[in-house]
Amino acid sequence: MSASNGVRVSVLGLGAMGAALATALVEAGHTTTVWNRSAGKADALVALGATAADTVGEALTAGDVVIACLFDAASVHEVLDPVADRLAGRTLVNVTTTSPEQAVEIAAWAAGHGVVYLDGGIMAVPEMIGSPGSSIFYSGSEAAFEQYRPLLDLWGESVYFGEDAGLASLYDLALLAAMYIMFAGFAHGAAMVAGAGVTAGDFARRAGSWLTAMTGGFAGYAAVIDGGDYTVAGQQSLEFSNLGNMIDASVAQGISTEAIDMVQNLIQRQIDAGHGKEGFARIIESIKHPR
Amino acid sequence: MSASNGVRVSVLGLGAMGAALATALVEAGHTTTVWNRSAGKADALVALGATAADTVGEALTAGDVVIACLFDAASVHEVLDPVADRLAGRTLVNVTTTSPEQAVEIAAWAAGHGVVYLDGGIMAVPEMIGSPGSSIFYSGSEAAFEQYRPLLDLWGESVYFGEDAGLASLYDLALLAAMYIMFAGFAHGAAMVAGAGVTAGDFARRAGSWLTAMTGGFAGYAAVIDGGDYTVAGQQSLEFSNLGNMIDASVAQGISTEAIDMVQNLIQRQIDAGHGKEGFARIIESIKHPR
Repeated sequence: MSASNGVRVSVLGLGAMGAALATALVEAGHTTTVWNRSAGKADALVALGATAADTVGEALTAGDVVIACLFDAASVHEVLDPVADRLAGRTLVNVTTTSPEQAVEIAAWAAGHGVVYLDGGIMAVPEMIGSPGSSIFYSGSEAAFEQYRPLLDLWGESVYFGEDAGLASLYDLALLAAMYIMFAGFAHGAAMVAGAGVTAGDFARRAGSWLTAMTGGFAGYAAVIDGGDYTVAGQQSLEFSNLGNMIDASVAQGISTEAIDMVQNLIQRQIDAGHGKEGFARIIESIKHPR
Repeated sequence: MSASNGVRVSVLGLGAMGAALATALVEAGHTTTVWNRSAGKADALVALGATAADTVGEALTAGDVVIACLFDAASVHEVLDPVADRLAGRTLVNVTTTSPEQAVEIAAWAAGHGVVYLDGGIMAVPEMIGSPGSSIFYSGSEAAFEQYRPLLDLWGESVYFGEDAGLASLYDLALLAAMYIMFAGFAHGAAMVAGAGVTAGDFARRAGSWLTAMTGGFAGYAAVIDGGDYTVAGQQSLEFSNLGNMIDASVAQGISTEAIDMVQNLIQRQIDAGHGKEGFARIIESIKHPR
């Protein structure tokens, strides 16, 4: 598969994710050059048909588009600052995990060096790259997104959010935050039933199908939030959503209540502000307006 | 549909849930007697073929099995204490929302009055009763569960947990706690992207499919928790699970960090205790062993 398939691509960073991205490119027939700070990581890709570059500069010269999949924002600068002049005129797709502010900063740096910049946030683990269920979020240059979309689509569903380079990272972090909070909820529930001899495995089966069903409630909450009227009829009220039973049962089991207290606090602040008869979705106001 | 179908059932409490349960019984042809503290609630059920009792005692006498779907544990005692002698020898299925301790207390009260007791926790909203997706958890008398299972199955999937009457409620509350914590996670994520102009509706669509996919991780965490060895290879470590990016991005958006701080605290306590290289599932130890 060493035959050229149009776009020449260089991939910087061959950790598990970078290697997965490069593999998908090589297998699709793109002329692919790879570089990694430490040697040896490129061997498997070279066997597939990639070319290993000895230096970053060499890798940049070999690619029309450069994919950076490095450790963090600082390492993006460490790797690219010394060779910024060789990146000029090329497109940089940076899928390194960064904060939205860091993505905006790198985008400004790129613009200052005549580099077209697209920031990416990968919503998948390396094993999922190229498979259904893999999504990658992009923001920054829409022209670059459109030009290289066939290439980006090799990795998963490509979603473009806008010219603000920080948007993809912000959306990525928002979904990851929701995921980690859900995982804490799973752990809290598993801890509640553990004392009664229920295995985490048994709880996982029921929690998986229950929470999956309950994600069906998001659309209704969102409609209320976007509508801006928390008094719409048919909603479960904040007063009805008293989590005292869950807190008491957690205390009775001798476990920490901090996970469920967090939700109760969001509810209580709205009740205290006089909104107890309004819908549960109003907890977002407690988050949007910190104490 | 007034023809008798074996078991005679009485339903106490005709709120939205009690009415849904009674409707399913009448429609299946059971001789059904209904009672509610305030009048008028029985009219629709009488039109379907149910009999309205004027007093609780009258309702008890008419049923082989009595379903209590009241406001709370206190109202169960208020309604049943004065007529305990007429309940003797019958089976009480109490689906009133209570704490596990309250369920155990009511079970003891029932045993003291010669009443067979089954406690139920309904994992459904009234509109779901009798439809796929409705589950009802039971604990207490296994004999009663087996005897009346065809009746119970009219309402949804019937799941029996054990003789400890508090188990169904505990499991119910554990799943509800996980759900409310997930909802808070959804709200947190929606608040993160709101400042960038993303609607809650857009976030809900992506969060729904993302979190549904991520529930697939529960089984792996559960296997580690049940195995008791958080050092098993292939896990994402606690140190890698640093939520600093999500906290910083939340701060940058001007929103409260309390939801994501909760998870970070669970992680940090395990790292501080020297377990940073172990798997993320270890956060359950922070919950099982409060500060």
